[in-house]
Amino acid sequence: MVRTTAAVGAKRADAVRNIERALDAAVTCLSARPSATMAEIAKQAGIGRVTLYGHFASRTELVDAVVARVVERGDEALAQVDLDGDPRAALERLIRNSWRLVDEARTVVAVAEAELPPERIRSLHDSPAARVQALIERGRDDGSFRDDTPVTWQIAVLHQVLHGAGAEVAAGRVAPADAPDLITATVFDLLDRR
Amino acid sequence: MVRTTAAVGAKRADAVRNIERALDAAVTCLSARPSATMAEIAKQAGIGRVTLYGHFASRTELVDAVVARVVERGDEALAQVDLDGDPRAALERLIRNSWRLVDEARTVVAVAEAELPPERIRSLHDSPAARVQALIERGRDDGSFRDDTPVTWQIAVLHQVLHGAGAEVAAGRVAPADAPDLITATVFDLLDRR
Repeated sequence: MVRTTAAVGAKRADAVRNIERALDAAVTCLSARPSATMAEIAKQAGIGRVTLYGHFASRTELVDAVVARVVERGDEALAQVDLDGDPRAALERLIRNSWRLVDEARTVVAVAEAELPPERIRSLHDSPAARVQALIERGRDDGSFRDDTPVTWQIAVLHQVLHGAGAEVAAGRVAPADAPDLITATVFDLLDRR
Repeated sequence: MVRTTAAVGAKRADAVRNIERALDAAVTCLSARPSATMAEIAKQAGIGRVTLYGHFASRTELVDAVVARVVERGDEALAQVDLDGDPRAALERLIRNSWRLVDEARTVVAVAEAELPPERIRSLHDSPAARVQALIERGRDDGSFRDDTPVTWQIAVLHQVLHGAGAEVAAGRVAPADAPDLITATVFDLLDRR
């Protein structure tokens, strides 16, 4: 019994290790080449295709798990940012700490947008979006931000500006060092009261 | 000789018709389900898979042709918009005439972003981007728009706002009738001189 339990435990540990490897490999492969195949991802992970398919029945299932992981890691990083105090200063801290994360997730999210239903993409973003929404609403309530435009639209534009900055940096039109100032100035142009 | 030429001509006309059908079917299928397969697209087009592969050697090649077509059609529509006169009024006309096009192209462009190299996506957008750039530069020169932020950044954010509006409408958070006013107000918040 003890041996069997140990064997099951070892097998489970193996599976966890293979899943971790597959997800890491998928992030690497899909970021480099969005149309990367399951065979390429298995090779990068150093596991067999059969093993990969054993854990993820389809490429769509793997893409879903990859996006969930990337968004979750981003959300964990954001959870470290102090969002208390002056809403404007808090939003600036949030932007400076998050634009790189949005940029890193950009290719993976583009793959997901092309392969997963829009509702799934939205539900994956629920937790980071809620964090941003709470902050912007606090700023609207205390008069830091304008409240004559829907809060959902303000969040959408903030997200799009972060996304756009990543694309401009990738295209070589914005220097990475300039991106946080550019994003912050643009977001405050949108949120400051007139 | 005459018969042969006629036969070649008929064959060519057939090919053109099949390519048109394939592209229309691909726009329909990829907009509905971004991961649509070549088999599904052939079925929708009412042509055989072998015929489809005869014109487009791979799904990537087909996606490339689809995006080129969607962008070209959008660009033709934009060419009808009068961009002369007051730059602010011209930009408002451009936005009101283009946000739907950007929205319709959104899913197809997401598929392309996941499958084509970024340089290719950019070069496909060269013509509409040049149109917008000329207008914004004219407005910067005559003092209609602020010129203390890079013009490429202003174009990028304009594009992102249009893209974001389409996504918000698709998500049911913005009514289609409200979208043009919301986009216009947001874009002028960014471009107006302080």
